[in-house]
Amino acid sequence: MTEPLVWQAPQPERADAARNRQHLLATAREMLAEAGPERLTMDALAERSGLGKGTVFRRFGTRTGIFVALLDDAERDFQEQMLGGPPPLGPGAPPIDRLAAYGEARMRFLMDNRDAARAALLGRLPVPAGGLPASLSHTHIRMLLGLIDLGPADLTVLTAQLTAALDVPLLRYLSATDADHAADQVTDALANGWRDLVRRVCRP
Amino acid sequence: MTEPLVWQAPQPERADAARNRQHLLATAREMLAEAGPERLTMDALAERSGLGKGTVFRRFGTRTGIFVALLDDAERDFQEQMLGGPPPLGPGAPPIDRLAAYGEARMRFLMDNRDAARAALLGRLPVPAGGLPASLSHTHIRMLLGLIDLGPADLTVLTAQLTAALDVPLLRYLSATDADHAADQVTDALANGWRDLVRRVCRP
Repeated sequence: MTEPLVWQAPQPERADAARNRQHLLATAREMLAEAGPERLTMDALAERSGLGKGTVFRRFGTRTGIFVALLDDAERDFQEQMLGGPPPLGPGAPPIDRLAAYGEARMRFLMDNRDAARAALLGRLPVPAGGLPASLSHTHIRMLLGLIDLGPADLTVLTAQLTAALDVPLLRYLSATDADHAADQVTDALANGWRDLVRRVCRP
Repeated sequence: MTEPLVWQAPQPERADAARNRQHLLATAREMLAEAGPERLTMDALAERSGLGKGTVFRRFGTRTGIFVALLDDAERDFQEQMLGGPPPLGPGAPPIDRLAAYGEARMRFLMDNRDAARAALLGRLPVPAGGLPASLSHTHIRMLLGLIDLGPADLTVLTAQLTAALDVPLLRYLSATDADHAADQVTDALANGWRDLVRRVCRP
């Protein structure tokens, strides 16, 4: 029964790998802030981080993998807010208020991380799948809809519709432009539109 | 002033090209019906049609181009129904009924042409653009929303939301499976869900 332990990677190496990962992500974030997404390549990240190209390659696989990892890392904080943070995003508010707050927070999160979101999006999604790793978003919307008195409704279809209505207009904006032009106004318009849609769909 | 006419392709050649196009599309439809989308390749279409590989290549460019052309051709009929056919899809019904009918008809159209829709979709869309050539769909939904008394609403955002809510759940289904399994039930569920969404969003 000890064999599985023997076959695991030794603890010190795992700590090293985690440290390398954090160092690479921090370096990538610096490079993104200083010079924008175009300059953030595998080679440039290896050079700037002082780690080998092999390490960067093993960690991220492709250049898109860097952006996906940056977004996943940022999303972890967002998810904590959503699952355990203060209301109305976190638990404690009426579900319709949580649904409205969730959509707005997701849009603002993606807009705040739009260089990574755009690069992750353009690099890896071959079909209009409706978004970045969407399963948590889908699950959260489905859970909240289940708590709202909607009358007769097909919650599976309604969840798919609302998930698409939340993500696609924003992803269209992100994939249509790489300028920051009007980002704040677009975010506000989409956030207001989401609140309005939730109100319309969920009113008794 | 006659020069532009001189420089146009001669009329007989254009008729030939149109005939070739119709022959190729009819042959492609036969092949699709008989053996499914996998067998519909550029080489097989050239052989079966009796036209040269060069002609097929010039006409469609890539294998995906065959499916896009099949879908465009089928969509022309659908558009005629939508713009000038009998109500409630065509003009003459209240706009909210037309909106409900349009979504259901679009879903049934895409499901009826799902081999072409799926192949066109997987072959050419690098981002979650929310659908096949969507501009007409977008324009039609925007036009109908403008005729409905919605109270205060951002019609640009609402159009983007509803276009996504209409297309993405269906495109997800098409891109997730190439089986015909449950296609009728899925279409019915999505069509009912669309009608319900329109009713919820547009009620006074």
